[in-house]
Amino acid sequence: MSKFIVIEGLEGAGKSSAVRYVTAFLQRHGIARFECTREPGGTPLAERMRAIVKEVHDEPLTIEAELLLMYASRVQLVETRIKPALAQGIWVVGDRHDLSSQAYQGGGRGIDAALIRAIKQAVLGDFKPDLTLYLDIDPSLGLQRARDRGELDRIELEQLSFFERTRARYLELAAQDDAIVVIDAAQTPEQVNAAIDAVLDSHLCIPG
Amino acid sequence: MSKFIVIEGLEGAGKSSAVRYVTAFLQRHGIARFECTREPGGTPLAERMRAIVKEVHDEPLTIEAELLLMYASRVQLVETRIKPALAQGIWVVGDRHDLSSQAYQGGGRGIDAALIRAIKQAVLGDFKPDLTLYLDIDPSLGLQRARDRGELDRIELEQLSFFERTRARYLELAAQDDAIVVIDAAQTPEQVNAAIDAVLDSHLCIPG
Repeated sequence: MSKFIVIEGLEGAGKSSAVRYVTAFLQRHGIARFECTREPGGTPLAERMRAIVKEVHDEPLTIEAELLLMYASRVQLVETRIKPALAQGIWVVGDRHDLSSQAYQGGGRGIDAALIRAIKQAVLGDFKPDLTLYLDIDPSLGLQRARDRGELDRIELEQLSFFERTRARYLELAAQDDAIVVIDAAQTPEQVNAAIDAVLDSHLCIPG
Repeated sequence: MSKFIVIEGLEGAGKSSAVRYVTAFLQRHGIARFECTREPGGTPLAERMRAIVKEVHDEPLTIEAELLLMYASRVQLVETRIKPALAQGIWVVGDRHDLSSQAYQGGGRGIDAALIRAIKQAVLGDFKPDLTLYLDIDPSLGLQRARDRGELDRIELEQLSFFERTRARYLELAAQDDAIVVIDAAQTPEQVNAAIDAVLDSHLCIPG
């Protein structure tokens, strides 16, 4: 039975490395059929929506339009790639998914959590990841790492307080859901990988 | 007190001519400050959302993503252009607005009307046009006119039954709202203009 595993976290938390580690874990366990997705984006049309929310524009994008674009991108990805893959027995490893909207648009931007849940329910229903690994990092450390990598996008240019609210919402939501596991991303890469390994071992019923 | 007037209708109903007639009416009545908008679109970012919903793609756009893009475009236009214009005493004449989503995505696509209203309420609140002129036309006649003008876009390529459901929803919604006036668009252009004239005269309190 294929599963949908999501990596979540602030900028600079190490999501890309974690995605690589998870796919290597799957391969080590004989799971050859998997796909990687990213959000927003992940299909040609969803990538066009991603560009609108990520690029720095002269015209300010309203927070409501940002939220709706995130969900438009997500439902497009879920219906055209993730659900079809899972139905064919292909595992999916996602770089971000719905928790990002709840944390960033809800916690960071301050949009009413009930409204976000209502939109989610309306377009995604009960669809959700089997397992989410939330890489927790202090935003000042994460943003420094992201800055060291190069230019920041429109959302990454927000104030530190925005990311502190986002992190707080991530932790709040993780505490309420057994399918979201918090991993301390301030550890060394080896320690983070060991933690991911332990979580995947205990949460996924992988034969052999 | 400036107002927001919207022209609605199926493809080929004569919306562009009606927009021109309304703006000429405003000028004749000494209203020099007005802006024209179109939906989806109307700002640089909203036009990028419009392109995603209007272009013919290899990748099918899900109806949920289409709906969310329509509202993302709308809230972006309302917050960055329509509300600021009205606040400065500038009239706004819109080529389509919220009624289109209720008719096309609700009636045509069959998305639950309560869900569409919930999204609308969440992002637009009680904002609505002061007056909507719905140009009613038999879809087979309207589509013929649209075809004669050139290539059809992704939505215009739908089956006739799609437009019949859309028209039925337009008429149903118009019957429930005094601020929506139905105009028979199968009449001659002169008769349509005379009808628009009569509606604007009776609904707008224009001095002089």
